Amino acid sequence: MNSPHLARGSRQPSPPPKGKLRLYSNRFCPYAQRVMLVLDAKKIAYDVVNIKLYSKPEWFYDVCPSGRIPALELETGDVLYDSLVIADYLDEKYRAHHLHSQDPLQKAKDKLLIEEFSRIVNATSRCIQSIGRGLDSDDVIVNGLARFEHELANNRGTPFFGGVKPGMLDLMIWPWCERAEILKFFGSVNLLNKDKYKKLMEWSRRMSEEPSVKRSMMDSDTHIKYLQSYRAGRPDYDMILNSTN
Amino acid sequence: MNSPHLARGSRQPSPPPKGKLRLYSNRFCPYAQRVMLVLDAKKIAYDVVNIKLYSKPEWFYDVCPSGRIPALELETGDVLYDSLVIADYLDEKYRAHHLHSQDPLQKAKDKLLIEEFSRIVNATSRCIQSIGRGLDSDDVIVNGLARFEHELANNRGTPFFGGVKPGMLDLMIWPWCERAEILKFFGSVNLLNKDKYKKLMEWSRRMSEEPSVKRSMMDSDTHIKYLQSYRAGRPDYDMILNSTN
Repeated sequence: MNSPHLARGSRQPSPPPKGKLRLYSNRFCPYAQRVMLVLDAKKIAYDVVNIKLYSKPEWFYDVCPSGRIPALELETGDVLYDSLVIADYLDEKYRAHHLHSQDPLQKAKDKLLIEEFSRIVNATSRCIQSIGRGLDSDDVIVNGLARFEHELANNRGTPFFGGVKPGMLDLMIWPWCERAEILKFFGSVNLLNKDKYKKLMEWSRRMSEEPSVKRSMMDSDTHIKYLQSYRAGRPDYDMILNSTN
Repeated sequence: MNSPHLARGSRQPSPPPKGKLRLYSNRFCPYAQRVMLVLDAKKIAYDVVNIKLYSKPEWFYDVCPSGRIPALELETGDVLYDSLVIADYLDEKYRAHHLHSQDPLQKAKDKLLIEEFSRIVNATSRCIQSIGRGLDSDDVIVNGLARFEHELANNRGTPFFGGVKPGMLDLMIWPWCERAEILKFFGSVNLLNKDKYKKLMEWSRRMSEEPSVKRSMMDSDTHIKYLQSYRAGRPDYDMILNSTN
């Protein structure tokens, strides 16, 4: 998953090896990470073609006319996009290690929580765009996180939202939780409060220790370095690749 | 489904009769209609409590803290919201008359088309808000509709997107298609072109003749009258009720 990011003018890679799905991805895109988390949790074989988001290769639009990342190429040649649509597809197609609850009501409730988490993410982005303004006092963020803390502490009573193993809700919200330390960089002092979000912090530690989650995980320093390059107008997608060379 | 719309200050209705789901709805909300279409297609028993969107009753926030319409109250007392989450829940919980394809790939493709249709709807709303500006030339609308016409004509070859009966994709896009004549009111002359969108027009006629679709259907005059009341700042939700009294 750490291959160089391809850009306009690049040659189209040869087809994936037989028996493997292909994920068109970006190493720093949280939505692409959602799909990697599902593939890794379900132990599905795949290869990764990384794409520069600000300079997508011409051939990519032939593969995926919507031009959207992440996109998943199937063995049939069909290409799906949208992280949630791909995640649900994989969970229905590959029955082993199911991630969604098998109870339709619990599944629906989890989908509403994924939506609710997206509202927290959007509110956080809005605050960050004005350099941390209101992060610690934004109602959507503060009430939203309290809702998730309450959910873990009072409604679930399990190590993960999905039970004894991470389920779909755990995986769909994780990419942003992995990046939570970024908030310090934007001046937040309350959102990572270990007492206020005790259960969420324990959950986050447990998630970071799961082998299938570790596969796509990056440390906070890397996320912050990437963010700085992004904000400077030169997103350094190949940062990890370059640092290991 | 044509009961008066309840507002702030109203008394909370008594619980639904045993064995019935309760839909908190609004007679003119296309998202609420999506849920009625699913309930009617699957022949699920429900009653309707209509809500004034601009003056929601205080008690409604106790029932559904998100305050969102449509909301579905289950026999367990749980309340779900979001039309797509509710639709998927109903299709999974009530196995008879299944609406989604049983093939995970076709189901995923249909979900992407529902998303694509939402982009057409959003583009149309943007154009309408500037009184019809660009409706006939907006790329998202024109290319989007061409995509749906092509899909019916070339990819499906069936009377409905779902096959010989309307499926989930048919029902999720129908409420806006039922309202298509509104576009004339906003000066569009091309979007209802019978030659350009031949298959879609045939599909629309077939949809309007389906008994389960007819249950929630209203005619174009009613939609246009409602729209005029909405644009005048006094949405007349009880229009049908009053006209039949």
